[in-house]
This record gives sequence, structure tokens and C-alpha cells, in this order.
Amino acid sequence: MLTYSFANIGSDSLYEHLYKCIKKDILSKNISVGDKLPSKRSLSKNLGISVITVENAYAQLISEGYIYSIPKKGFYVADITAISRIPEIITPADSIISIETISRKKIDMISNHTSLDNFPFSIWAKLMREVLSSNQPELMINSPCGGILKLRNAIARHLRDYRDIHVEPIQIIVGAGTEYLYSLLVQLLGFDKIYAIEEPGYQKIAQVYTSHHVICKHIPIDNQGISISELEASNSDVLHLSPSHHFPSGIITPISRRYELLGWASKKEGRYIIEDDYDSEFRMVGKPIPSMQNIDLSEKVIYMNTFNKSLSSTIRISYMVLPMHLINKFYKDLSFYSCTVSNFEQYTLARFIDEGYFEKHINRMRSYYHTKRDNLISKITSSRLNKYTTILEEDSGLHFILDIKTDMKDDEFCELALRSGLKIASISDFYAEPSSKNTHRFIVNYSSISEEDTERVIDILSAMIFRK
Amino acid sequence: MLTYSFANIGSDSLYEHLYKCIKKDILSKNISVGDKLPSKRSLSKNLGISVITVENAYAQLISEGYIYSIPKKGFYVADITAISRIPEIITPADSIISIETISRKKIDMISNHTSLDNFPFSIWAKLMREVLSSNQPELMINSPCGGILKLRNAIARHLRDYRDIHVEPIQIIVGAGTEYLYSLLVQLLGFDKIYAIEEPGYQKIAQVYTSHHVICKHIPIDNQGISISELEASNSDVLHLSPSHHFPSGIITPISRRYELLGWASKKEGRYIIEDDYDSEFRMVGKPIPSMQNIDLSEKVIYMNTFNKSLSSTIRISYMVLPMHLINKFYKDLSFYSCTVSNFEQYTLARFIDEGYFEKHINRMRSYYHTKRDNLISKITSSRLNKYTTILEEDSGLHFILDIKTDMKDDEFCELALRSGLKIASISDFYAEPSSKNTHRFIVNYSSISEEDTERVIDILSAMIFRK
Repeated sequence: MLTYSFANIGSDSLYEHLYKCIKKDILSKNISVGDKLPSKRSLSKNLGISVITVENAYAQLISEGYIYSIPKKGFYVADITAISRIPEIITPADSIISIETISRKKIDMISNHTSLDNFPFSIWAKLMREVLSSNQPELMINSPCGGILKLRNAIARHLRDYRDIHVEPIQIIVGAGTEYLYSLLVQLLGFDKIYAIEEPGYQKIAQVYTSHHVICKHIPIDNQGISISELEASNSDVLHLSPSHHFPSGIITPISRRYELLGWASKKEGRYIIEDDYDSEFRMVGKPIPSMQNIDLSEKVIYMNTFNKSLSSTIRISYMVLPMHLINKFYKDLSFYSCTVSNFEQYTLARFIDEGYFEKHINRMRSYYHTKRDNLISKITSSRLNKYTTILEEDSGLHFILDIKTDMKDDEFCELALRSGLKIASISDFYAEPSSKNTHRFIVNYSSISEEDTERVIDILSAMIFRK
Repeated sequence: MLTYSFANIGSDSLYEHLYKCIKKDILSKNISVGDKLPSKRSLSKNLGISVITVENAYAQLISEGYIYSIPKKGFYVADITAISRIPEIITPADSIISIETISRKKIDMISNHTSLDNFPFSIWAKLMREVLSSNQPELMINSPCGGILKLRNAIARHLRDYRDIHVEPIQIIVGAGTEYLYSLLVQLLGFDKIYAIEEPGYQKIAQVYTSHHVICKHIPIDNQGISISELEASNSDVLHLSPSHHFPSGIITPISRRYELLGWASKKEGRYIIEDDYDSEFRMVGKPIPSMQNIDLSEKVIYMNTFNKSLSSTIRISYMVLPMHLINKFYKDLSFYSCTVSNFEQYTLARFIDEGYFEKHINRMRSYYHTKRDNLISKITSSRLNKYTTILEEDSGLHFILDIKTDMKDDEFCELALRSGLKIASISDFYAEPSSKNTHRFIVNYSSISEEDTERVIDILSAMIFRK
């Protein structure tokens, strides 16, 4: 029977301590792959702690892949050689996460989180209440496959007013996240098509296409975005890109290149461009560049956007705008699908946009991120880091690029940062084809960096650069 | 310029009248394919009605496919030869639907709607308010790909208590509707697998598989469900079925056949059974038969259920339970996907289950449907219909089968019923391979039939049967 001391557990809760002890034993092979762990009840008796505590510790270990359970049999130690491949998203078990855990976390310049203060809880609650009291009949009628028309009207107006995109509400398809919409697009455009994505690029896009078993080609970008010659050579049919703000490089594709890309698409029937406009709301300086949808006269562009960045990634609402001829095909082939977003949230979001709250929210957030960005940039440039770093592509979206003069390899740099408490990624991390070339360019996603964290970021980076 | 009289519009609203006039002109080819309609402004001037009225009429025509719009150019008459193929789901434009329109509708024994009185609005609103005020930090943390653990815990407990299914919360994957989960399963189990579905069966299942370009075989059912010999002969890998209540036949697969099916699955590696338990909550008589998941010791069954039937089809929350070895594969291959259900609704549903409201709701609904069913059956058997009808498979779910002595062909019968104001489907409608054989069996989905409608149903059916 496992026996651990609970004498010096520091600030850990009981379950955390137990979880760490068992994890340590698994990692050090004191308990071997396939070994059965004691039942929750017997371990709780043996250690003199509650069953719930053991349950929480086991849940945490399961969610991180260290152990697995066989119903009615018990808990077994997993083969942890595969663990490093399990993506982070499945941890930690959210029922047992505490606010302390969140604040004790490493500084995260990789993920996007909407901070608590930035979600308009009271307005959302008010609108949700209004919807629940005054829209009851509509709440019980199945949404059309493309989404509630009231929401699509609201989005169409928003696109017209803030992005100068003029479309009919019927062209807008609402879905539970852009990943789901990619899946619909593969079904709409064809499993036999060749899909081209940006190299480097946002990994999830490649993962969705690959998971649908379609051919997915990685097209190198130059300093203006997708390389036309490489695109031509690839024999691709559908190009998926983010011309308004490429991730991770931050590049904004200029108008000339946009026309060239539209030229490529118009050259052959069946070619399409998926314009992923994921954070166009957060252009910090100057007017946004017109979208490709806007200058497309040959119905080649499928425009896509999401409320993940502008509202919260935990409300799953995204949408795409299909050209007229594709919307007809969509209704013919795919309208058997139910809309994946609940009516309740569709109506709430429609009110949020219609009543002007979304505009106010975006403006507030833009100014909030602007301040955050300026603060971080001024701290960097006024520190001794300044001589060793260059800030690039800082005018749009929620990240900029930090070019760092360092001899360290990109992955070494990120690893050392992580050990110092800073999660940061390099541009190299977003290449599908690993290369030995080091970019020395790092992605500074400042959306979740607090005022206090700013100091620590400077300290950690300085310590790393000047450590010799 | 189109000119219509608004003198005799009866009970129609202005926009409805305009919509009908233009539709009539399109159908009678007074306006031809490709013709440009007048702009909203000029038509409103010409007819002396508001622009909004024209806008609503045009929106309705667009949503039904009669016209289409080209942004910045105008509205054009569509090629309506294709219109009959456009599924009903895209109509009507919901922003302009009114309560009157809903109540004037035909009696619908095909679709499921949760009636207004049956959704627990006030409890849902209360719980949503609690979540919005007390779960703010958790609401902003991205859900694990399989769903919030609190909800998966609640579902696991519910399955244990009400279905005697014992699983770990980590085995449960929450998603925005079963259709979305089918898509995940194709990605998990393989695009190269052969999927077997029930013939006759629920059409959407075939549509999802076909839309994913996988081979989908239709396996005939006998009076116990899927035919084993046909299944063996089909060379299928994955069998998708509803053993607890087959749609549309209403058949409940007996335990012996369930074991045979498990035997089939166990015979070869890579074979799986998807057990779609969509309305097991509504067994009216006796205890539910154990699920196949329950008697599966070889990790072959993927259990699936939804809150669409038990709560409302407009809240998109479903889940599946993966066997342990598949859950590991799921986390490895597919955990890059974000969960498709919003945190807000996941937490609200978790509370709804945890605090006992779901159980109460199910019990209330079961008794409500029980009364509805008994009422309809007694009305039928005490009417002169009795001699010409037999009621079958009435013990489970929200529909039963009416076997009608009639010379009419199945499709003729349904068409005549529709013209009399009753939407009803026959079993023949759910065969993938159309056959000339007539079943004379009709599906009576009584979930949305009101007390008053019951009389009309009897009248319409009687008039049809005794019309000679």
C-alpha cells in the first residue's frame, strides 16, 4: 500500500500533495506501468484522509494521463512514455482547479484568455435574463442550420459598419467555433481538394485538415504573406490564410499581394480563398486594411471570423460568409445539419450586438490592449534589453514579435524561459517542417500579461540574455 | 415595375401578401429566371408601403430560395427548378416569424419541439444567473476538449443512477449535438472504415456519414433490430444503432440480439458499436432494458445520448462515452479540438443535473407524455378508426406506429394528410433504397400534439379512411 507523509505539504492542499507524491513515484518508476493503485477507499483509510481527497488526486492523475481507470476494476499506472505527446489542453481537471492555482501559474505569453475584468458579465447576465423572459417562443424553435436570422442580421450590420463588408444575412453561417466551420468547409468544397495553409502558421488549422484526411500543403510565406510562386507550384485548390494579421509572424499582407492572390483564385474554377480575419478588431494603429472579401468580385473569398478573441474563447460562436453560389450549394448539401450554437446564446449575442454593447466592448478592449502593449513595449525599450531586442509587427492584433540577439537556439531559449517561469514560443515552433534554422524571433502575446507580470517578464528575459 | 393590389389581403400581413404575390409571379414565370427585381426603396415607393415590409418579403423569398441577392447590385430571380431540393429547415426567416404564424401551422407529427410550457425557463434562468455570478473565473478558462469536468461528473452520476452505466467522467466527451459527435467518431475510428446503419433509419445519420465521404451501408432490420446475417455479409466495421428504441419502427432490440451484436463486434479487432440511446429517458412502461454499454466487457461499445429530447433541441448539448482504450486515442489524436459547447451552458446544465432538477424534469415530462400518449390512443381506439388501425410499439419513446388498413400508397396517404393539415410520415419514408412496397405504417410522434389537435388528428385520419 502506498504510504506518504502529510507533514510538510507547504501551501499545497491535501489532494495536491497526494497527487504530487504519486506522480513522483510513477515518474521515478517506484510504481510500474500496469500496476494497480489501491482503491480510493482503502488508500483514504490507510492515509487517514477523506475519500474525496483521494478521488481528486486520482482525477488529476487521470486527466494528466499518468493513470487510467477500468470501470469496476480499479486504477492502473499508464504507459507514461506517451505522456509528453498528450496536449496540455486536457489538464488540469477543472473541477478541482482553484483560484490560487491560476494565479500561481507561470506567466503565459502563448495562450489567449479573457481576463475576468474584461468580460462584460453584468451586461451579459442582463441580456440573457431578457432573452429568457421575452424570447421564450423563439428559444424553443429550432435554429435554421446557418443560425438565427436575428443574429445573422446583427453580424451583417456589424460587418457593414465596422469592416465595410456588405453581405446578405443569408450568406452568414454561424457555428460553434472556427474549427467546426473548417470541417463544414471541407464537406462543402470537397475531400478531393488540395488545401494550402501558411508556413509557419497556426497549428490547429493543419490539424483539422489532416484529421479530415485531406491533402494539406504548407506554403512558405515571405515578408508580404503567402508566396505566389510557391502557391502556384503547389497545385492547391483552396488557400486558407490570415491576410490581416498572420500568426505567428504578425505580417499584414499588402493590397498588391491580395490582388495577386485573388488573381490566382480567379484563374481556375473551384479555387477558393478562406480569409481568416480572427483578430481584425484589434488593429491598434490606423484604419484596418480592406478585407479580401471586400475586393473580391468573382465570389472566390470565404470570409471567417470569431467572437473568441473579441468576447471570450469560452463562448463558442464563430461565423463564415459564403459567396452566393456557395451558399446555394451549402443549403442543398449541408442544411440537414443542425446549427451547433444554442438558441439561448445566439439571441443573447444578437442583442449584445444590436444594442451597441459589442461596439463599446471592442472599443474598451482595444484601448485596454493598447495600453498593455504600450506599457510592455516601453518597459522593454527603456530596460537594458533594448540593445538586444527589436520589436516587430506591433500594430495589429494581440501579439507582437520580439527579435532577440542571442546565440541560444530557439527551442533552448523557450525551454530556459519556461524553467524561469515564462511560457513563450518562437516562430520556429509554428513550422510544420522542423528546420535547424533559428529565427531568434519570439511571440509576445500580451493579452493576459498583468502590470506586475510585465516586470517579471523583463527580469526573466534580462537574466537569460545577460546570464553569461 | 411590379405592381400589386393590397386591397384584399385577408389576414395576411403586408409583407406576407407581397411575398405571396412575387412568389406567384415567379412560379407562373411572369418574372423569369435571372430577372432583376426592383430595389427595396423603389418598390416601397411604387407600392406605397414601408421599406421594411419589402425587406421582409425579400428576406422570406431569399430564405426559400426564390430569389437571391448580389451585394451592391440587387435582387434576382433564382432558378427555381432546384427549389424542391432545398430542405425545409432553411425556412422561414425566423426574424419575421410571428406567434400567429406558429399557431396557424399544420399539425406536426414529424418533428420534435419542446413546447413552451415544458421548458423549465425560470429554473434555467435562476441557475444561469447563479453561474454568471459565482463561477466567473471558471467561465473564462477554456473547457477541456471533452467538456467541463463538473458537467462530465454530473453526467457520470446521472448515468450511474438512472441507466446503471458505470463510467469515469474522463470517458465522457461533450459536444454540440450528436451530429458533431458522429463527425468526431469518423475522425477517431477512421475514414477507411465501413459504417453500418439501420435500414430503415433516421436519415440524418446517413447524411453525416455520406457527407464525410465514408462508406455507409444500410443494413435491414428484422423484428428484433439489425439482422446479424446481413451485418456479417456487409463487411462493416462500425455499427451505428438505437437498440433501446429504433427510429422509425419503434423496435426494442431484445437482450439476446444485443449479445449477438456484441459477439459480432468482438470477433474482429477494430469493430465498434455506436449505441445511440437518444430517447431512453422516455420509456413509458416497465424498467428500461440495460444498455449495450452496460453488458459490454470488451470495450466495443460507444454510448451516445443527448439533451435534445429530454431538455430542448435548441440547447445543443450531447455526449458520448468512449471505452478506455479509445479515450486514450481520442486525447492523443483529437484533443487539439476545442469543446464546441459554451462554458456558460455547460456549467448551467451541470447545476441543473447536480441539484436534482433534471431528474424532476424528466419525471414530469415522462408523465406528461404518458398522458398525451394515453389520451391520443384512447381517442383513436374509441373512434371509428379503431377497426382500421393497430397501434404498435407504444411502450417507449415519443412516437408509436399506427398500422392503417388502407389501399392508399404510403406516399399518397402522407400527401393527402398534408393537404388536410396533418404532417405525418410513413415508415417507407425512412428507407434509403426506395421500394415499391407499401408499409401502411405511419409514425405518430405525439410530443407536440395538443389536446385540441388530438380531435383534429382523428377527424383528418377518419375523413381520409372513410372518404369513399
